[in-house]
Amino acid sequence: MAPIPPSEDEVLEYFKTCSNWGKWGQDDERGTINYITSDARKNAAGLVTEGITVSCSRPLSKALDPDVHNPLIHFMTGSGETWTGKPSERNSMQSSGDFIGIAFHGFTVTHVDSLAHVFWDGQMYNGLSADHVTTREGATKQSIDVLRDGVVGRGILLDIPKIRGKDWLEPGTFVYPEDLEAAEREHGVKVRSGDILLVRFGCLMQRNEQGPTKRHLEKRAGYHAACLPWFHKREIAMLSSDSAQDAFPGGYAKLPMPIHQVGIVAMGLWLMDNADLEQLAATCARLKRYEFMINISPLRVPTGTGSPVNPTAVF
Amino acid sequence: MAPIPPSEDEVLEYFKTCSNWGKWGQDDERGTINYITSDARKNAAGLVTEGITVSCSRPLSKALDPDVHNPLIHFMTGSGETWTGKPSERNSMQSSGDFIGIAFHGFTVTHVDSLAHVFWDGQMYNGLSADHVTTREGATKQSIDVLRDGVVGRGILLDIPKIRGKDWLEPGTFVYPEDLEAAEREHGVKVRSGDILLVRFGCLMQRNEQGPTKRHLEKRAGYHAACLPWFHKREIAMLSSDSAQDAFPGGYAKLPMPIHQVGIVAMGLWLMDNADLEQLAATCARLKRYEFMINISPLRVPTGTGSPVNPTAVF
Amino acid sequence: MAPIPPSEDEVLEYFKTCSNWGKWGQDDERGTINYITSDARKNAAGLVTEGITVSCSRPLSKALDPDVHNPLIHFMTGSGETWTGKPSERNSMQSSGDFIGIAFHGFTVTHVDSLAHVFWDGQMYNGLSADHVTTREGATKQSIDVLRDGVVGRGILLDIPKIRGKDWLEPGTFVYPEDLEAAEREHGVKVRSGDILLVRFGCLMQRNEQGPTKRHLEKRAGYHAACLPWFHKREIAMLSSDSAQDAFPGGYAKLPMPIHQVGIVAMGLWLMDNADLEQLAATCARLKRYEFMINISPLRVPTGTGSPVNPTAVF
Amino acid sequence: MAPIPPSEDEVLEYFKTCSNWGKWGQDDERGTINYITSDARKNAAGLVTEGITVSCSRPLSKALDPDVHNPLIHFMTGSGETWTGKPSERNSMQSSGDFIGIAFHGFTVTHVDSLAHVFWDGQMYNGLSADHVTTREGATKQSIDVLRDGVVGRGILLDIPKIRGKDWLEPGTFVYPEDLEAAEREHGVKVRSGDILLVRFGCLMQRNEQGPTKRHLEKRAGYHAACLPWFHKREIAMLSSDSAQDAFPGGYAKLPMPIHQVGIVAMGLWLMDNADLEQLAATCARLKRYEFMINISPLRVPTGTGSPVNPTAVF
Repeated sequence: MAPIPPSEDEVLEYFKTCSNWGKWGQDDERGTINYITSDARKNAAGLVTEGITVSCSRPLSKALDPDVHNPLIHFMTGSGETWTGKPSERNSMQSSGDFIGIAFHGFTVTHVDSLAHVFWDGQMYNGLSADHVTTREGATKQSIDVLRDGVVGRGILLDIPKIRGKDWLEPGTFVYPEDLEAAEREHGVKVRSGDILLVRFGCLMQRNEQGPTKRHLEKRAGYHAACLPWFHKREIAMLSSDSAQDAFPGGYAKLPMPIHQVGIVAMGLWLMDNADLEQLAATCARLKRYEFMINISPLRVPTGTGSPVNPTAVF
Repeated sequence: MAPIPPSEDEVLEYFKTCSNWGKWGQDDERGTINYITSDARKNAAGLVTEGITVSCSRPLSKALDPDVHNPLIHFMTGSGETWTGKPSERNSMQSSGDFIGIAFHGFTVTHVDSLAHVFWDGQMYNGLSADHVTTREGATKQSIDVLRDGVVGRGILLDIPKIRGKDWLEPGTFVYPEDLEAAEREHGVKVRSGDILLVRFGCLMQRNEQGPTKRHLEKRAGYHAACLPWFHKREIAMLSSDSAQDAFPGGYAKLPMPIHQVGIVAMGLWLMDNADLEQLAATCARLKRYEFMINISPLRVPTGTGSPVNPTAVF
Repeated sequence: MAPIPPSEDEVLEYFKTCSNWGKWGQDDERGTINYITSDARKNAAGLVTEGITVSCSRPLSKALDPDVHNPLIHFMTGSGETWTGKPSERNSMQSSGDFIGIAFHGFTVTHVDSLAHVFWDGQMYNGLSADHVTTREGATKQSIDVLRDGVVGRGILLDIPKIRGKDWLEPGTFVYPEDLEAAEREHGVKVRSGDILLVRFGCLMQRNEQGPTKRHLEKRAGYHAACLPWFHKREIAMLSSDSAQDAFPGGYAKLPMPIHQVGIVAMGLWLMDNADLEQLAATCARLKRYEFMINISPLRVPTGTGSPVNPTAVF
Repeated sequence: MAPIPPSEDEVLEYFKTCSNWGKWGQDDERGTINYITSDARKNAAGLVTEGITVSCSRPLSKALDPDVHNPLIHFMTGSGETWTGKPSERNSMQSSGDFIGIAFHGFTVTHVDSLAHVFWDGQMYNGLSADHVTTREGATKQSIDVLRDGVVGRGILLDIPKIRGKDWLEPGTFVYPEDLEAAEREHGVKVRSGDILLVRFGCLMQRNEQGPTKRHLEKRAGYHAACLPWFHKREIAMLSSDSAQDAFPGGYAKLPMPIHQVGIVAMGLWLMDNADLEQLAATCARLKRYEFMINISPLRVPTGTGSPVNPTAVF
């Protein structure tokens, strides 16, 4: 039986009850990353017992698929064809090179949102005015460069379809705190302060098997807004999934993406959208453990609102 | 007294004596990354005793500095100015976004070269023809995506100016195996198979203090070609520094960049150019240890010749 | 009754019989633009009797339509939202700006192909080796900058669907010299040396009415290869249409795009692909004349293989 | 003797006295282009007596010169090197292609500003709010696509250094209405309603001869603000020069670029910055006439704030 969802007013109330504004000082730009302590990092390193690494990133794609807003731009600045069959010459080097360009926000690229990515009533996390993010200069506050030293900590995978005996959740399915706790029990883990939480909905497996469609933009499995107090109470440092977190449609007209809106603005919660959790889920199932060290190192774009990333889980 | 450098013929001979072609099979695309074993990763995790992380990446810069070939392109696809002072509305989300574009090869961006980046006599690592890297498709072999699961292992910093009592090596200074071994002794570490070796020349500190100039393109401190057999014998997995590795001018007309040319093509050696080792060096000096866990996770560009990265050292 | 098409061998023979190699000298890069004389330009100006101008360019589109290979990239470097309701300040200017990026070749952008765009057996127009077009430097010969002073001359519109009493030719329809001559008779014009010939197939009207589909990439109305000797004999300076010229499939396995292949390589014929001829056709019909002055001014990309253009017809 | 320049208050008064707001209706987006009548176009065509065309565009440059804010981005999507020495194959075409990207505003690219490029006190031409130009969508009003049918009319060149017996005006030199009228007398032309006025300051020749420097950003020859009423009274349709119009420094703290600010916002005056008038001036001098037909056809960027152009003068 599905839980009774909160009313829209109750969700709007989360902006206060789940708020971290001022918690780490008026100038704080780190939000929930503050939950990751030195001890959390040390303990995470202690989880490395196999010496195995697993990527949680989708490949960047040039394909103009129906659910892609902004495909990767990739051009060669030099190629091998120039040199085929030619001897190397003095004072010159045979080399190739390339240019990559990407507008990573959206529903297909694995990326981290900085806290400058979403606003509510014209305000950013910690009460800053939205105009700290300008067209000319970018995010002059709360940019992705706040994470310059990388995010290293304990990762937890909760595989919701697996505990339901399915390959994936159907588009539009909500995931509630009750589901997260059921998965905790099933997997034998418990999410705690400073964790990087990755939840598998199976969205990517469905896309891989059925092909990309525009429908995936219109109806998506994801977290219900009711998870917000749970994330807040558990003090997670970063939230991820194989989708863009929010179930869609989410059921609240004023909050089309409550996880993004309450999460980023009120909680200062870091989101990592559109991960690839397939290999991770297989590894967890094989090793029968759902905790691991994880490293997420965004590119240092000084005024960026996020960055494509290749998160590395280490077992 | 400076070591007697090898003759050009002797360096050309390295293409054979330092070759790893066929060592890991005819289809191998991983080269020296093969040296990183599960045990190496586990041991690296064991070095995490403080729970401190340090970025080894320079910020990506939009500045048209004299030593920049290709500045970062960074455009906003949405900004906060749109929303300042405005209440959030139903069915719409206040958000910002951006586009980043970068041709990362060169002398200013922290990036990893894939083995598809350099050719010798029209050939790539492991004897493939250079035309596997095409203008239309990019690196169809030996692309950066070979490292999709991330590079996790033991990092070693050797701080050459420090052991000489200087801030930086003057442009044009050669670093020889003798210098590397002197630093090993001084720092109390020994480079071994599977290590990620980072050597500080001080190039970035000099740039930071004196400002960028075109001169840095013409004369650079760096490894002498004589280091190649040493890298080969020590079986390092990846080589980095705060420069683009090769000293310039390097002294050999036929090999303007022998570390790139012999290293990538013959050895299959992965290079990470233009790191920022200032904070890392300060941390090593403070903690009095020059070994640490390091994680380098290139973006998954399926046919890329490299990727900008933000390497994270964990102590 | 449809004309009997030439055999593939006969079309391959066009590489010789329609060749302009050497005609204007061994170093010529201008090809058929040489046909436009000063007198042709003067006469074209004499056609301006109404003082009306008509664009023959489609708008550049950001839409990821199914027949679009490379959508326009368009980012703002400054926007008006920054300044709304704010007084101008000393020493600063309220302004906006943008970045545009486009890979214009393909089937949707109105653009001119330079003679460096197509090769046959590894050769360019006038017998140059294809490697004059490099990944690193672009078209070092026969670039679009050859047309730096603009193309000004007499334009002729032949509206094939109109003379057949249709809105458009169905995808896959061939246009033969017989059709061109029928249109000449119907419209009361005769194509002569130095003319810029624009032929309406109705492709764009069909796209506008039915919406873009992938099918338009697979089956397109266009010129039959049999038109090549006619273009050669008539000495046209530039060829255009509301498609990418070649009918598809064209009927010849070795020459998937004979108008591009024989036209560009053998004849040095300048092509302007994907024009918008709807307003032009309406104007010609209204004024009952199918000749006009036309001006096509490619951007000066020194080593470009073409340029997006906005051709202006003047009546 | 230099004219007595107006006070800052007098220049600010131009916003009223030179205003065209409402002149062509409340919804007008065409501004001074309205001055170009059908008769003006016909008369312009009548000036074509030689059949000669001259480009007024600088080449787009990839060089990172000191006065370049945003160099051309130019990448090959296919190159000839792929095909060198290879026979053409069935069902495949040997071709090349490229991508171009440009942020054209600034001081080096020949481009037209749309009326959406500059604001005063948060307003655009004709009193629209600046927020019609958004980060997300671009110029939703008064975009460059207003000029979709091309600008065709009479061009007038006034060569100020020539009448002073110099090669160029020194950086910082002001050009006043008195200079324009002296050039009119000297050249035997008179600027009238609907003209496209191009004035040569010699800036580009100086750059060509002395090389690009940062100084050219700090001190530039150009129109004095005192020219604004003259442009208004003469009813010119478009203003151009071999610089970005405004002399710099211009002498007015509140209006760093009065030609851009009063011209675009109050007058709805179209500006074409950074033309190359060297070949044009030589042609005018040789033919002893300073009037000609001119065609300027911006790219159709639906929400662009301008476009790079290649203006073609026809004699």
